[in-house]
Amino acid sequence: LDDLKRIEALMNQAAKAARTNIVASVFQPFEPHGVTGVVVVEESHLSIHTWPEHGYAAVDFFTCGESVPEMAHRVLSEGLKAERAEVIFVDRGMTLNGTSGPSMRMRSHSTEHFAQQALAREIELAHAPQSVHAAANGHSAHNGHNGSSNGASSTVIMAAPRS
Amino acid sequence: LDDLKRIEALMNQAAKAARTNIVASVFQPFEPHGVTGVVVVEESHLSIHTWPEHGYAAVDFFTCGESVPEMAHRVLSEGLKAERAEVIFVDRGMTLNGTSGPSMRMRSHSTEHFAQQALAREIELAHAPQSVHAAANGHSAHNGHNGSSNGASSTVIMAAPRS
Repeated sequence: LDDLKRIEALMNQAAKAARTNIVASVFQPFEPHGVTGVVVVEESHLSIHTWPEHGYAAVDFFTCGESVPEMAHRVLSEGLKAERAEVIFVDRGMTLNGTSGPSMRMRSHSTEHFAQQALAREIELAHAPQSVHAAANGHSAHNGHNGSSNGASSTVIMAAPRS
Repeated sequence: LDDLKRIEALMNQAAKAARTNIVASVFQPFEPHGVTGVVVVEESHLSIHTWPEHGYAAVDFFTCGESVPEMAHRVLSEGLKAERAEVIFVDRGMTLNGTSGPSMRMRSHSTEHFAQQALAREIELAHAPQSVHAAANGHSAHNGHNGSSNGASSTVIMAAPRS
């Protein structure tokens, strides 16, 4: 979580896995620890902020159109060897198709536990058009649960329609 | 909402108003309309995606520490002359201080209506440590409600603790 080049590579890999088209990528070290980074894509953006001292990463996937943010989640949670992923989906721009009512909605909030060596310990995830549970199905069990967990990472998926 | 230079200036102004320190700024035109942009700050990031054909902008403020994302919301909603702002606050990284329970929480979801000439029509906003209602108090009534509204814009504020 403190390896800027590794995080940047993972985030760009995640953007490609989500079938988004990368426009720009900005990654910077956090002070005193951690990485902050954004991948701007034609379909919106992916961002990450890490707290290695807490084993925690907060990741947002904001996508629209035909993108598959669940694949970005899979790449990140596998690449960071997350032990736990907390995921929220937030619908955005729900009124763009002419309907009334709220424009935003928290569609789901779930927690995934992975039986793999922990680098990051928790993941949050917010908003996408399909169920995020599909993203967790690809995780295979590795070498058992690491009992020394004391941190968290986080992912957020967001999506909006694109006319 | 289709004026890239204006949107970039507003977002940088918003970042400064929120008392964040700007690290990098990436703005690109959306196809066929609109702007996508991210301001990377030491305290995390601000992002915007606009749909001028719908009078809609989706804005996220992800901040930590002593930042004041409500001020960024004020700058944006005033600068875009929003007619309506839909706002959600999402707490992030709630377990970083050693507490148990969920790491994310939707703290509030509210809608603000502004009596001003509409450029953008709706705002979503997600997550900050203080109440977002403070951000709306600074809006003064202008020249009455624009009856021709048919779109939306959006802002999201998010915040995480910073050790």
